[in-house]
Amino acid sequence: MDQLPKCEANYTPLTPITFLKRASAFYANRTSIIYEATRFTWGQTYERCRRLASSLRALNIVKNDVVSVLAPNVPAMYEMHFAVPMAGAVLNTINSRLDAKNVATILRHSEAKVFFVDYQYVQVAGEALRILVGDSKVPESSIPLVIVIDDIDSPTGVRLGELEYEQLVHKGNPKYVHAELEDEWDPIALNYTSGTTSAPKGVAYSHRGAYLSTLSLILGWEMGGEPVYLWTLPMFHCNGWTFTWGIAARGGTNVCLRNTTATDIYRSIAMHKVTHMCCAPIVFNILLQAEPNEITLTSPVQILTGGAPPPAALLEKIEPLGFHITHAYGLTEATGPALVCEWQRKWNQLPRDDQAKLKARQGISILTLDDVDVKDLKTMASVPHDGKTLGEIVLRGSSIMKGYFKDRKATSEAFKDGWFVTGDVGVVHPDGYLEIKDRSKDVIISGGENISSVEVESALYKHPRVLEAAVVAMPHPHWGESPCAFVAIRNNSAGKTEDLREAEIISHCRKNLPHFMVPKKVVVLPELPKNSTGKILKNELRAKAKELLVSVNLSNKSSNVNPQPIPPFGEQNLQAFSRL
Amino acid sequence: MDQLPKCEANYTPLTPITFLKRASAFYANRTSIIYEATRFTWGQTYERCRRLASSLRALNIVKNDVVSVLAPNVPAMYEMHFAVPMAGAVLNTINSRLDAKNVATILRHSEAKVFFVDYQYVQVAGEALRILVGDSKVPESSIPLVIVIDDIDSPTGVRLGELEYEQLVHKGNPKYVHAELEDEWDPIALNYTSGTTSAPKGVAYSHRGAYLSTLSLILGWEMGGEPVYLWTLPMFHCNGWTFTWGIAARGGTNVCLRNTTATDIYRSIAMHKVTHMCCAPIVFNILLQAEPNEITLTSPVQILTGGAPPPAALLEKIEPLGFHITHAYGLTEATGPALVCEWQRKWNQLPRDDQAKLKARQGISILTLDDVDVKDLKTMASVPHDGKTLGEIVLRGSSIMKGYFKDRKATSEAFKDGWFVTGDVGVVHPDGYLEIKDRSKDVIISGGENISSVEVESALYKHPRVLEAAVVAMPHPHWGESPCAFVAIRNNSAGKTEDLREAEIISHCRKNLPHFMVPKKVVVLPELPKNSTGKILKNELRAKAKELLVSVNLSNKSSNVNPQPIPPFGEQNLQAFSRL
Repeated sequence: MDQLPKCEANYTPLTPITFLKRASAFYANRTSIIYEATRFTWGQTYERCRRLASSLRALNIVKNDVVSVLAPNVPAMYEMHFAVPMAGAVLNTINSRLDAKNVATILRHSEAKVFFVDYQYVQVAGEALRILVGDSKVPESSIPLVIVIDDIDSPTGVRLGELEYEQLVHKGNPKYVHAELEDEWDPIALNYTSGTTSAPKGVAYSHRGAYLSTLSLILGWEMGGEPVYLWTLPMFHCNGWTFTWGIAARGGTNVCLRNTTATDIYRSIAMHKVTHMCCAPIVFNILLQAEPNEITLTSPVQILTGGAPPPAALLEKIEPLGFHITHAYGLTEATGPALVCEWQRKWNQLPRDDQAKLKARQGISILTLDDVDVKDLKTMASVPHDGKTLGEIVLRGSSIMKGYFKDRKATSEAFKDGWFVTGDVGVVHPDGYLEIKDRSKDVIISGGENISSVEVESALYKHPRVLEAAVVAMPHPHWGESPCAFVAIRNNSAGKTEDLREAEIISHCRKNLPHFMVPKKVVVLPELPKNSTGKILKNELRAKAKELLVSVNLSNKSSNVNPQPIPPFGEQNLQAFSRL
Repeated sequence: MDQLPKCEANYTPLTPITFLKRASAFYANRTSIIYEATRFTWGQTYERCRRLASSLRALNIVKNDVVSVLAPNVPAMYEMHFAVPMAGAVLNTINSRLDAKNVATILRHSEAKVFFVDYQYVQVAGEALRILVGDSKVPESSIPLVIVIDDIDSPTGVRLGELEYEQLVHKGNPKYVHAELEDEWDPIALNYTSGTTSAPKGVAYSHRGAYLSTLSLILGWEMGGEPVYLWTLPMFHCNGWTFTWGIAARGGTNVCLRNTTATDIYRSIAMHKVTHMCCAPIVFNILLQAEPNEITLTSPVQILTGGAPPPAALLEKIEPLGFHITHAYGLTEATGPALVCEWQRKWNQLPRDDQAKLKARQGISILTLDDVDVKDLKTMASVPHDGKTLGEIVLRGSSIMKGYFKDRKATSEAFKDGWFVTGDVGVVHPDGYLEIKDRSKDVIISGGENISSVEVESALYKHPRVLEAAVVAMPHPHWGESPCAFVAIRNNSAGKTEDLREAEIISHCRKNLPHFMVPKKVVVLPELPKNSTGKILKNELRAKAKELLVSVNLSNKSSNVNPQPIPPFGEQNLQAFSRL
């Protein structure tokens, strides 16, 4: 049977570009994009992408060139997810919260040929370009061509150089036919990691991986036809967890948002009958902080959340409003979500508390992932499914990245014995569902016992006044390491925070945790330090915890509680309490 | 970026086997199969498949060997969809309605090494084997090893040779690890076409094609988690339109049925809370003919139908019962359904009549199909999207067959200029939806005008008394060809059929069709002749129509109506009326 050869009719490269072409054929008059007063149909979106792709070719963009973009969730950002690969190029979306130095690092490393910049970011982009121009190692020919993206709905006239996005779309060929993809292994996107732990790395996705991951997430979330998808998740975040491509696959409507305030979100939901949105659990706080009269859900909104497990207390508040939460786990290297906490119908019978616990688990592999496991990396043996034994989460499948661009060492370290090593530590429950207990580097080893910082954080979140919590290792003369907690607390009715004291938190933890896991020190902050994607900067907290040890040791001589203010975190004030 | 190589962690062959392994990991205790009093969980199904696969290896089955099976929708038939490819072999399910000669032809052509036979089919299988043994061209070593499948729920003791299915499962290794698939292009299944028009051809599927098609159909049908799927569609029919693999992907429950009577179907729906089933529209008649007290749907049942467009009259009767119909179009060569008539929400506002018309269209390509078009095969130009211009439907994508086994000529004829040519003639409507107008060989050319036999049939179905209709070309001395209709009519209240006369039908057609399309002859039959998969045998009707011409010409001399009985179709009586 092997003599039956592949041909163009029965073997076509898997690429998300197909989804747009198909949407234009079958959903031509359906609304593809809503942004303020601007509306496009799928027929128009396909035509605009063809025009832009042809203009990129006219600008000498060739196969595998990198095209960078710094923009919020505006129509241009969406269109580039198709137009750039249709030109044969690789899309590099840059985190818009980065500073000029980091942007410059990415432009340099990616060797971007073109740099699209939303008008809102011309300042940081201009600075980044000046850094490149001033860098003697970067030849002038390597400075990317800059194209500004003005606001399509309310043009501002802001420019950075000669070219503007709409001009390129206008001049392009509406009948442009993109060259057939030769190999589905070709790169489609380059996404830089947020670099909480090390220098940002350029994660390359293949067309095949992006395609399969897109299908998996529609399936895993059970997203039906004609979704109305609200862009609360930045598209620069793993290409919007593949929903940039997925909404085309489903013939849905993209509701684009420049800002994600509670007012904007609720207004969009009400106006456009939003059915789906993705966000980090931190957005739940934004949604909950809205004025009661703003909260107007006439039909349920599906939320896919990730980045951190949704705390039970937040779930209990957000779900009664009409938001239905699905929890996913992923990472840039896995083309976004790799596990989804697929809900089992029988769980509907359980008390709300138990449901929240189940929902906080990371779950099961998406359909197109070949395998997932939790292993002892030394022996590569699988851990028992006891919900207790910690191991490293490893993944395998065609939606895993091609590798790190220009970094063979990091690439080969990430792949071990046929698995991608996530760096996350977790357990497998008896029902096969995975739960992450920590980043491997965040595990606290106290007196030889492994303490999951996430587990301690979960206990902290159970306290009604705790808004944010992070637990890191603090050096300890006796135990080696011991847990140190940083918490931000909810304002009381008078708007004051200072009334929650360490002793109360410690006492709360004693009731909810084994003794060895109780934080030896609790620091209350107005807000925890976070990186540009909203992740808590544990490295910074660890550095702070090291300093605290010293002050604890000193203070210990006189008193059990350290009344001395700790140096501020950046611009934030810090209240510190210590206990040994 | 091209220097980033594939490795085992980021490039794994796409194969449906993954779905079973995953189901066993995450849905281990969920019911996988229900058959009479027998129940299995996904953990058990995986183990049983591992055992069977290891037993096949022990029987010297090696890579790319063909394993044939003749069985109804029993658990063994389902298990073989995973166990056979897990042994590296190719599954060949044989249409259980074929006669011994046809079965022998398939066994010989496929070079089957093992032949599984359900106890119910030992007679036809035994005869087929005797034909092979008696064939001097088949060496003794090429006679397949026979393994009988006894009823797992109520063993009968019927045997055909030494081996029995459960014995193989029992003796197998529960920890068998299937060899890693080297290439997703490797064959997984071999399905013979029903051969209404020519000798049966062996259609080979790749693992890649089966995998992608499975995902597409779950997506196209919007099948959510935990479906309860009733096996009304034979699994031998394009591997149950891929739902053999798809139910594992969704962690659903397979309700297996040996017989598809109305009683069995309604009983299963009520007992097991069936959510989904597939069937040809002909099964709607079975469902409608049930006693009113048998019809007990407490929640909606999704039906995916194909093989023929669902007639509006049937839709109007079946949907109010609680069945929700989705119409798909496919063919063996496309791994089952290739188009799905995806419903658009705005259509809900339309009158029921218009809805039925829209639902009868074949629709839009499934997600993993790369492209579909309707073309003039001479020029390969696309037809205009006017809903009128006929052209051949062509498909392209990774779910199209590898080709016809041992038939290079037929394979190369099926593929033309990068497209698979379906042999179906259709139109594209202005909204992009396709509608089939005919098999290319069924188009009637009358006085230079193309007449779609399907269009004439649709008009006939509008008559309240018409139960079945088929229109074929009849040679005509003046027009070259003219339409000849064969109809089966609904019993009147007294159970009599003879009261509907040709003149009335012709007059009905005159009101509903352009004059040139009105049948020149109408033949009323108690039932239309069908092949083993329920398709109307137009070849047989065409042969009959040729004979009719003669009798018409003769009878024409004396009378306008021919009172002479026409020779019977097989065992059926035939009433013939003629008109010129």
